[in-house]
Amino acid sequence: MRTPAENAQLALLCEVTATPKPGNVDRAREYPDLRFEHFMAGVVGASEGLRMAAAGDPIGRAFERAIEGMADQRGGNTQFGALLLLVPLVRATSDEDESSASSEELTPKRAAHVAAATTVADATAFYRAFEHVDVAVDDPPTDMEALDVRRGADAVPAIEARELTLYDVFERSVDRDGVAREWVSGFPRTFAAADRIAALDGPVPDRAARVFLELLADEPDTFVVTNHGEATAREVSADAQVALDGDLDPDALADDLVERGINPGTTADLVAAGLFVALERGLDV
Amino acid sequence: MRTPAENAQLALLCEVTATPKPGNVDRAREYPDLRFEHFMAGVVGASEGLRMAAAGDPIGRAFERAIEGMADQRGGNTQFGALLLLVPLVRATSDEDESSASSEELTPKRAAHVAAATTVADATAFYRAFEHVDVAVDDPPTDMEALDVRRGADAVPAIEARELTLYDVFERSVDRDGVAREWVSGFPRTFAAADRIAALDGPVPDRAARVFLELLADEPDTFVVTNHGEATAREVSADAQVALDGDLDPDALADDLVERGINPGTTADLVAAGLFVALERGLDV
Repeated sequence: MRTPAENAQLALLCEVTATPKPGNVDRAREYPDLRFEHFMAGVVGASEGLRMAAAGDPIGRAFERAIEGMADQRGGNTQFGALLLLVPLVRATSDEDESSASSEELTPKRAAHVAAATTVADATAFYRAFEHVDVAVDDPPTDMEALDVRRGADAVPAIEARELTLYDVFERSVDRDGVAREWVSGFPRTFAAADRIAALDGPVPDRAARVFLELLADEPDTFVVTNHGEATAREVSADAQVALDGDLDPDALADDLVERGINPGTTADLVAAGLFVALERGLDV
Repeated sequence: MRTPAENAQLALLCEVTATPKPGNVDRAREYPDLRFEHFMAGVVGASEGLRMAAAGDPIGRAFERAIEGMADQRGGNTQFGALLLLVPLVRATSDEDESSASSEELTPKRAAHVAAATTVADATAFYRAFEHVDVAVDDPPTDMEALDVRRGADAVPAIEARELTLYDVFERSVDRDGVAREWVSGFPRTFAAADRIAALDGPVPDRAARVFLELLADEPDTFVVTNHGEATAREVSADAQVALDGDLDPDALADDLVERGINPGTTADLVAAGLFVALERGLDV
């Protein structure tokens, strides 16, 4: 009986609960200034924006509202990337694409349609969301400096002058951002994560922790690339594979990465999005 | 910027996060069939009922809706008692009592007014809530058998024949139920817990864990009385005092009580309610 907005909240809560999720805050590990309860408050604060997404409000406005609410706690950025994946997916559950109006199911096609249908106004609202919270991002390429997300609302005139939709913005970031890659390609890793979560046995957070390791082993985390460079990101992915192979205790890897402040946040975002899709498709908690 | 319904959800999340909370599910301990994520799903499911309470819907209907949503997970009863405290407190934040209409503050007086203003329809909705989930309760006194809450909707004719309001129902249960005692006396332990939580330092869940021990040491838990008898409940309270005095590790007490299946649930309900009042009065997370 949960609504899509409620399933999105439960997905975020199960994601942060899942342990060990090496390098990320989970129910057993946290950073001194970024604690478990900050994620709880982030989920509660995001609820109104998630409901706006479900109700058909413009994606950009819904996302900005979700971030504004999420940021009402002392930990800073808790779920920016996860909400950036969840908002279009929540919208896709009620999207009335002509070709799929008869189906209630959440599919990559419906999600891709929502992403492709974004507007310039969605892009400007996305930039405004950066006014509410500090998000670690890479320097943009030289020809993209006017579009640096860290400029927040100051970048709006450049967005409008170039008539860039939110989809267009993400197309320009696929090289450095795993969330943008999902947006422009029908959310393939999200849906693959959902399938894996549904296929595994046991408590949902335990499945989520396993899928986190699988995703991390599969591709370097772009948030780690941003903060620590490509070499470190590749090393972390290799370690995740060793953990999956049973030759490294995932808890030891988790302690090590938290100690070094290496936080594969994009992989966690993908797990949250995968949990949401799985819940929408009937996963029981 | 959180609404009262959102603060109620955050209170429930911070309560279950707080550790150690001897005998109860927390972020470090759970029972095989009652896990941490069941509490997360319970909070998400309760949100619509909490919003109904804030919007001024009848208390009984709001509570029944909260329980119906809470029960949409596999763990069974997660937050029945906590929601029974939270629903009138959420309502009190928007209640327009003549004598206090000018104040926005959540006070014992406003909460007492909400409780006193309940109707027979609130009582019948409360009984219907028991249809959604199994709740451990004591046998009623012989002259109250027709009003046994375990009869659920079957007890409604008896409620209506006797014209009992929800307040009247709780007046008849004060001897055996710590939640009922709060309802009929202006929520004194709830507001005292809120004051303690606000006065302590450190992360909010750590404060909640401390106040849990203080409340438990202060009075035997009525849920433990129901399930294990008065003597065990007194022994648990004595152990909580020893832990507060520093002569027993609270984590060891937590492990011991979980092992024995002794769950001071009413004390946890009071902590959740106290967290809500503290959040409404400006506690930062």
